Amino acid sequence: MQIRDLGEFGLIERLNGMVTQGRRGPDNGAAHGFRLLVDTGDDTAAWAAAPATELFTTDTVVEGIHFTRETTPWQDLGWKSLASNISDIAAMGGLPLYALITLGLPPETEVSDIEDLYRGMLEIGEEYGVSIIGGDIVGSPVAFITVALTGVRSGPPMLRSSAQIGDQVAVTGYVGSSGGGLRLMLEGSEVPGESAVYLRNAHRRPWPAVAEGQTLSRAGVLTAMDVSDGLSDDLSKLCLASGVAARIFSGNVPMHPYLRQVFPDNCLDLALNGGEDYLLLFTASEEVMQKVIPALPDGAGVLGEICSGDPGQITLVGADGHETAMGRAGWDHFSQGCAR
Amino acid sequence: MQIRDLGEFGLIERLNGMVTQGRRGPDNGAAHGFRLLVDTGDDTAAWAAAPATELFTTDTVVEGIHFTRETTPWQDLGWKSLASNISDIAAMGGLPLYALITLGLPPETEVSDIEDLYRGMLEIGEEYGVSIIGGDIVGSPVAFITVALTGVRSGPPMLRSSAQIGDQVAVTGYVGSSGGGLRLMLEGSEVPGESAVYLRNAHRRPWPAVAEGQTLSRAGVLTAMDVSDGLSDDLSKLCLASGVAARIFSGNVPMHPYLRQVFPDNCLDLALNGGEDYLLLFTASEEVMQKVIPALPDGAGVLGEICSGDPGQITLVGADGHETAMGRAGWDHFSQGCAR
Repeated sequence: MQIRDLGEFGLIERLNGMVTQGRRGPDNGAAHGFRLLVDTGDDTAAWAAAPATELFTTDTVVEGIHFTRETTPWQDLGWKSLASNISDIAAMGGLPLYALITLGLPPETEVSDIEDLYRGMLEIGEEYGVSIIGGDIVGSPVAFITVALTGVRSGPPMLRSSAQIGDQVAVTGYVGSSGGGLRLMLEGSEVPGESAVYLRNAHRRPWPAVAEGQTLSRAGVLTAMDVSDGLSDDLSKLCLASGVAARIFSGNVPMHPYLRQVFPDNCLDLALNGGEDYLLLFTASEEVMQKVIPALPDGAGVLGEICSGDPGQITLVGADGHETAMGRAGWDHFSQGCAR
Repeated sequence: MQIRDLGEFGLIERLNGMVTQGRRGPDNGAAHGFRLLVDTGDDTAAWAAAPATELFTTDTVVEGIHFTRETTPWQDLGWKSLASNISDIAAMGGLPLYALITLGLPPETEVSDIEDLYRGMLEIGEEYGVSIIGGDIVGSPVAFITVALTGVRSGPPMLRSSAQIGDQVAVTGYVGSSGGGLRLMLEGSEVPGESAVYLRNAHRRPWPAVAEGQTLSRAGVLTAMDVSDGLSDDLSKLCLASGVAARIFSGNVPMHPYLRQVFPDNCLDLALNGGEDYLLLFTASEEVMQKVIPALPDGAGVLGEICSGDPGQITLVGADGHETAMGRAGWDHFSQGCAR
């Protein structure tokens, strides 16, 4: 059945039912004194707020530009479109809370595909305590998904603008795996099962670093952002916002053994420019780093340092000490090319 | 200059500058103890919340489906895309607060058009105390604008699900003017200046009924929603949510003299089915109505009554007492036709 047969209101009713019945995860709001008052189905959703720092972010994916049905099945797309927003909340050290989902859909979209999309959103919502409390569905010649997500935390958020010269730069996991998974799928390469499954899952089902964000923030880390556009590009943005430069030591960039194995020649490029890892990139003094890294569930890899220089300039230092200036362009949605 | 020449980051920088420098309106957040902590430019925006009821809504327009550049210039489109969201907050009796703006744009979009769009958003933001505190810009083959907006109020929100049999039904202004303006523009009709200006402005620059929503709520009105899809359709939704039916008396539907003058044969159809009026439709007992209508800045027109019947069924009662069952379909984004 296509959505033009079911109609807008039939579709909304079906999704509202899934959403209200599918909530089984933690209630991050209740833990901070928030209480949902008006759920999905009215003009707006409403909750009773308590004194806390609230966070508010949004992220959009457009078919053919950010995803294809070939590389990301609908259920994974649901997971991923919420994941990228949860990751922005994680980067501030917050807990994700309430989501509004906007779907732009061609009339010939299959109802079962949209139900799969919502299943993926509900799955990650359950893992992270996110409640979908409303949204909007509109007709569109191209499919797109916009998520607006609130979050909450009890102290001041981590920022990207507070990096200090002398800070170490670290990341909370292996970079490049998502980009490696995407490249595998696009190239249709035949590779051994386990590594392909790992890389593909890294692309389709990223796990935002919410617990890591909370640990970092509690340990006194002030500067963080998530790795969404690629390590090099995101570090450049962080440096630009902080008015500093940075050096990355290529030998210290944490890469999963499967990435090295499947892409022996391109793994560093994928790690630096792959994007969509949804790890946390953070900076702190050596003293704070030594305290916080052992407290993280999977540790973190120190891969560089903040230094003086043109704001946003990233320099890659090779194993032989050779220095290469990295581009600062990054992913640009409107130019022909991009840095990755 | 097109946005592919300026690039994503250049465009974001330019719009961030406009947004942070263009705030001169009331600060609805401060009045409720809210304080902005992280403005546009980081992973997420953040504010310090205070105990209050928070509201959260989103609304999207897609080029070619919800607007055309011919009938809605960019600056008016900016005004209007925020207006439809403010109207949802108004319907709950709230004050609008913080907005995130998502733009999906083809690379050949003119930068000056997007600046005009933001000018329109800043204009209405200034009028209503809305701060744009972030967003997302993505490439898209079709232009779309998604606004996510929070709001605040100090008591419980008005709902669409609380209408009671015996309630009167009223609306806070003239219905059909926006639909009349759109039809004028689509038909390219030559009509006398003043009435055309009025109708076109009603379509392009609607004024959401925030003050009215607050007055209604304070006076004890429990049931309201905004007129966005058309009076008949929206009343049907309200009735469906409340499990009741309603009768509309055609002679009591408030229509502006210019609408009657320009569309002598179609004004009732436009008033019932035109849409995008962004007035408030509300129900209350006769006693509450008599108290609240004089308190509204422009009064309100009682046009019908809530009665028992199939939930959502709307009956139109003519001047001669003849009854006509109205359709319950309303605007459907995915079906070929719609009720208006």
